[in-house]
Amino acid sequence: MSLDALPLRLEALVFDAYGTLFDVHSVVRRCETFFPGRHAALSQLWRAKQLEYTWLRSLMRRYAPFSTVTREALAHACEALGLELTVERMEALMAEYNMLSAFADVPSLFSKMKGVKKAILSNGSPDMLEPLVAHSGLALDALISVDELKVFKPAPQVYELAPKKLGVAKERIGFVSSNCWDALGAKSFGFTVFWINRARAPLERLGFEPDRVVERLDEILL
Amino acid sequence: MSLDALPLRLEALVFDAYGTLFDVHSVVRRCETFFPGRHAALSQLWRAKQLEYTWLRSLMRRYAPFSTVTREALAHACEALGLELTVERMEALMAEYNMLSAFADVPSLFSKMKGVKKAILSNGSPDMLEPLVAHSGLALDALISVDELKVFKPAPQVYELAPKKLGVAKERIGFVSSNCWDALGAKSFGFTVFWINRARAPLERLGFEPDRVVERLDEILL
Repeated sequence: MSLDALPLRLEALVFDAYGTLFDVHSVVRRCETFFPGRHAALSQLWRAKQLEYTWLRSLMRRYAPFSTVTREALAHACEALGLELTVERMEALMAEYNMLSAFADVPSLFSKMKGVKKAILSNGSPDMLEPLVAHSGLALDALISVDELKVFKPAPQVYELAPKKLGVAKERIGFVSSNCWDALGAKSFGFTVFWINRARAPLERLGFEPDRVVERLDEILL
Repeated sequence: MSLDALPLRLEALVFDAYGTLFDVHSVVRRCETFFPGRHAALSQLWRAKQLEYTWLRSLMRRYAPFSTVTREALAHACEALGLELTVERMEALMAEYNMLSAFADVPSLFSKMKGVKKAILSNGSPDMLEPLVAHSGLALDALISVDELKVFKPAPQVYELAPKKLGVAKERIGFVSSNCWDALGAKSFGFTVFWINRARAPLERLGFEPDRVVERLDEILL
């Protein structure tokens, strides 16, 4: 099914940032230099805690910027795994987050999407997102951070930012994420949803299903 | 520090249920009979997804009862681990949840707590909690489920149920949980908080700390 063949013609595509457009592999690689042999366990626990803390702080109504949450998750993960986290290591790992590369298929995907508005909607705070997008050279119609609402995905008011900022009805917006829970949150809100399932993971059970599941970003145009 | 020595005299103690008063070990044991050698991985992923789904559904404003979330988490965990989940296995595992035993130190703890109201505040739906408490014989002043609010912990309105139901100001309520994130959600709300850290896990980083950390339930009286 092509974009044109979807029930409604999509006028905008909204992308998640981390893990969807931008590859976090370089952060993992840096973990390996600091903690040889433990980087896989650290990366996995760090990511799990990073997400967990965004959900918990949102529910507690104790928002903190994603950069803070990411540091707190790293501190917990290192303590849980018995790894020594110095200030230098923390800063070096956080710096990697501002220099992530876009996945290889992103530039060609963007060049093919004519006549469709393109945006990023991310948990990332502006201090993390702006250098990332500047570094990538991607042309966006909107760079949207949850930060202005002080709550993280998958709260519906976060997804509501996209139709507001883009001036496009939610029924005409396609949302693209490699995080199944994010895709399902967007589906619950009312977008047409593409789940980029690179790892062939099983569907999360949250009462919704994506409109399409693909393994590579550029397949959303097929 | 004894309960009497706390800054304010506590008039009520409110307990989390699963993992705090009630031992989920029998569920793990049943996993072992169905999936020999894989029960540890399954129990861990099932529990992680169970919590994750409570947080995600709360943020999505798509509440489902804890019994539903627990089944959905089990289905996902089995698929992720390549384990065959039949209807019979699902029902047998869910049935274990209604027959959990209280930890060994619970009866003596309850008998020592004179002149203090005692309650359970749980994510569990009434269909899960009522048989559990009946089976345990514990005398409670209130059995409180999040179900009436259709949102899970750590949303502050959930903790607010305890002062309302018990008629005790939150400043005079002690909250006891083996789940660090639950203890910190309760602290954020305003209770005096005891974290039962049986596994000597590192503190979760959510901007709050428990008032006391102990390894066994009966230490909260010391």
